[in-house]
Amino acid sequence: MSTNPTRRRSGGSEARRASRAEGQAPQPPYITRNIPYYEVLDDDGLSIIENNADTILEEIGIDFRDDPEALQIWRDAGADVQGERVRMPRGMCRKLIQDNAPREFTQHARNPARSVRIGGANTVFVPAYGCPFVHDIDRGRRYGTIEDFRNFVKLAYLSPSIHHSGGTICEPVDLPVNKRHLDMIYSHMKYSDKCFMGSVTHPERAQDTIEMARILFGDNWIDPDTGKPRTCVINLINANSPMTFDDTMLGAAKVYARANQACIVTPFILAGAMSPVTVAGTAAQTLAEALAGMAFVQLVNPGAPVVFGSFASSMSMQSGAPTFGTPEPALVLYVMANLARRLGVPFRSGGSFTASKVPDAQAASESANTLLPTTLGGVNFALHTAGWLEGGLAMGYEKFIMDADQAGMMQTLLKGVDLSENGQAMDAIREVGPGKHFLGCNHTQLNFKTAFYLSPICDNNSFEQWDADGRLDMAQRANARWKKLLADYQPPELDPAIDAALLAYIEQRKASMPDSNV
Amino acid sequence: MSTNPTRRRSGGSEARRASRAEGQAPQPPYITRNIPYYEVLDDDGLSIIENNADTILEEIGIDFRDDPEALQIWRDAGADVQGERVRMPRGMCRKLIQDNAPREFTQHARNPARSVRIGGANTVFVPAYGCPFVHDIDRGRRYGTIEDFRNFVKLAYLSPSIHHSGGTICEPVDLPVNKRHLDMIYSHMKYSDKCFMGSVTHPERAQDTIEMARILFGDNWIDPDTGKPRTCVINLINANSPMTFDDTMLGAAKVYARANQACIVTPFILAGAMSPVTVAGTAAQTLAEALAGMAFVQLVNPGAPVVFGSFASSMSMQSGAPTFGTPEPALVLYVMANLARRLGVPFRSGGSFTASKVPDAQAASESANTLLPTTLGGVNFALHTAGWLEGGLAMGYEKFIMDADQAGMMQTLLKGVDLSENGQAMDAIREVGPGKHFLGCNHTQLNFKTAFYLSPICDNNSFEQWDADGRLDMAQRANARWKKLLADYQPPELDPAIDAALLAYIEQRKASMPDSNV
Repeated sequence: MSTNPTRRRSGGSEARRASRAEGQAPQPPYITRNIPYYEVLDDDGLSIIENNADTILEEIGIDFRDDPEALQIWRDAGADVQGERVRMPRGMCRKLIQDNAPREFTQHARNPARSVRIGGANTVFVPAYGCPFVHDIDRGRRYGTIEDFRNFVKLAYLSPSIHHSGGTICEPVDLPVNKRHLDMIYSHMKYSDKCFMGSVTHPERAQDTIEMARILFGDNWIDPDTGKPRTCVINLINANSPMTFDDTMLGAAKVYARANQACIVTPFILAGAMSPVTVAGTAAQTLAEALAGMAFVQLVNPGAPVVFGSFASSMSMQSGAPTFGTPEPALVLYVMANLARRLGVPFRSGGSFTASKVPDAQAASESANTLLPTTLGGVNFALHTAGWLEGGLAMGYEKFIMDADQAGMMQTLLKGVDLSENGQAMDAIREVGPGKHFLGCNHTQLNFKTAFYLSPICDNNSFEQWDADGRLDMAQRANARWKKLLADYQPPELDPAIDAALLAYIEQRKASMPDSNV
Repeated sequence: MSTNPTRRRSGGSEARRASRAEGQAPQPPYITRNIPYYEVLDDDGLSIIENNADTILEEIGIDFRDDPEALQIWRDAGADVQGERVRMPRGMCRKLIQDNAPREFTQHARNPARSVRIGGANTVFVPAYGCPFVHDIDRGRRYGTIEDFRNFVKLAYLSPSIHHSGGTICEPVDLPVNKRHLDMIYSHMKYSDKCFMGSVTHPERAQDTIEMARILFGDNWIDPDTGKPRTCVINLINANSPMTFDDTMLGAAKVYARANQACIVTPFILAGAMSPVTVAGTAAQTLAEALAGMAFVQLVNPGAPVVFGSFASSMSMQSGAPTFGTPEPALVLYVMANLARRLGVPFRSGGSFTASKVPDAQAASESANTLLPTTLGGVNFALHTAGWLEGGLAMGYEKFIMDADQAGMMQTLLKGVDLSENGQAMDAIREVGPGKHFLGCNHTQLNFKTAFYLSPICDNNSFEQWDADGRLDMAQRANARWKKLLADYQPPELDPAIDAALLAYIEQRKASMPDSNV
């Protein structure tokens, strides 16, 4: 069923070389979990949610706006279409997805050692997406530029626990709206060799993404076994909740699906405004919307890779402001991850959310309260893992460094408990015995280098040492680290002919249209 | 088997009155979970750890130091005693515990509405313990005083998500070592009506704790059904890891156990120094030490309540400094909680650990990485939930406020998913329909007051509002909150005759001994 059925773990030696060049321990291109999923509902509870989603699809329906082709596709498939309202018979969407969509798939990177496997027991940590502002503690908050964008591509490239280059990391507002996608895509291709995300703000921009990927991948674009394009781009298709898809998103989804590129179909929900104020209500609505979107992709091109997305925040019912890192969205995440596994598709949710404007304790606790559920619940594609501040309005330099460190901790957590003889360590306990210490024993000598996760930015020193070091807090240490990483950055090699072809494509495309801010 | 078999949920109206007096919503005295446990090992994995613990007890043994009575107790019970080394036949400790110790028990508060049920599906959040220093962002770090101690008792009393007054919250170093326990115990009794912990630094101080509790509880000290003292004090008995108990802890344990007061037997382990550098090795050693300690308590007084404790940190193998909030101790916690459930005793671990010296992002993320496993893993008695800074060396005022807020979030998380008709909210989805918003719908109107956890210190406002409010970070908002709470504090009522009797006891005891700093 999968278009990329083989698990690719090759290219390990290349990855190791790349890591050594950065002075880092070798890191896997993504994580395969060795700990169980955390699940909050039993089968009966999950069945209630699934039944309610089917009721929403059958009785209430989903609007597909300003896209007559989409309505015709649904009509042809046997759905009940009244105006722009589409009602699907119970089970129709589920069957379309389960009969056609891959359970997991590989997104190919230009460096094969960086390709990621999306779905199953795998976790891919991805930078934040879509922020108009950037923030650092030196300059404060300001609009993002293409220089900021490049900086974050470089930081993601240099972060062993961030497996992906992401997409619209920050909006480069110094470039025209109708052309900036070209510069963003090029930055991902030029300054990183990790996988990246495509433009979704217009079908033409989606097509540009595909054309540039075709240039970048060259002979590797087509899979000789299937004759179809390899999946080299993954794309964020948000529902306009409640229960609506608009023509922009549908247009991009059609372009990508027809080219066998991956679509993440994500109901984007501030619960209380775009869904009911309850976990179970938000879950049923999210499932209904995601089912409709993923089924639509399968109608456009059966077998095209899709990811079940869920973005759900709570809100302050006093002010209407979205709130993050609260318990209710964590419960939604656990439920949705479980529903995605039952459906049999990869799952995207979570990340490191916060409403804080600065990389302070609020930012850290809200992010941890999102990233740990992301990890334990079984998110496959963890968009927004690094950088997110201010409810997604700002991409933070220090926050990126802090979040990447946390993602490193999650990598270690996902490895689980080593129950080998060495892991059981009974020889060490026998050697040391009551009242002695383990620091010098043979087992400790053999294992100390890899024994515990050690953060590059947390301060574990004595108060006196910390005082002598200038009493820096976490944000200040993260500030020093991102500057050092950028100063030491070395780009991955890119074939000059491919680089020239990409630049020529961009030049030709930019020349073909006037600057515009829509 | 339990000496306090009845679940006490009475006194609700008193709790509601107390809460209203504080201007807070009524809160339960402790939390009963409605979400599953997170478990990282299966039965086979857990059996390996249990088998290794039995091997440690049988082959290596545990030292009981400078306490001939303890050795005689073990000898009489059939253990192999050589010098101070005690070796227990496989299964002996487990059987002593399972045949005698209560699976769960009630710790009684002087206000019955504040009594807590320890064990089973219940979680009790408790302040940090044992810090020589205190910290706030105005005055920085300094030695603790009895005034600081009283302040933290008051803050815990005023925090609806902190269920317990704790014990040695901070060391009042302005008082002589041999007398300060009297002032600490009195502070818990006078300034709070929540449960508290007793002194363990000398058997005489344990006895003082019991005498004062007897005065405080008066006619309620003896349970008329059993003729035995009610369990009114809980106490922290640490193992001197690896595989050693010393006479101070054994002396306090004997005093408390004989009076039917609860002992938390906790191997205190910096893994790599006091145990092997691996999760499975640390788990087996912790289990062995805890089994020995809990079995000893059952030999002293069969049926006395015990709690299985586990404290495990990782360390920097470069500097030897303990590290907190890392993934390995979280894995140890999940394993130990599971082992405690299999044994059938209440479990203590976790809290809100950090190595940070200040209430910054490091403090918040490390604490969240401890408190969420504490919650998901199923800790019953969560010592160190609020205030801990600097590896436990400092008790932080702002940190306390931040942690109490996080504990509030955990309370909501533990409630799980509401699958009632109202929770499913299908009427809301039908009423609103595609493309509309839920803010004004009937279901939202009915539920908005309790819909989402809302932090009193997180800032969810717009950047502009936050800017207008003075650009405060989390620590600054927490600073304002603890000052306001202390300024508004009103003590719970205490019978003047009891108060006078307590003060008379303290006066008499202080007069009986010279000041000493040991």
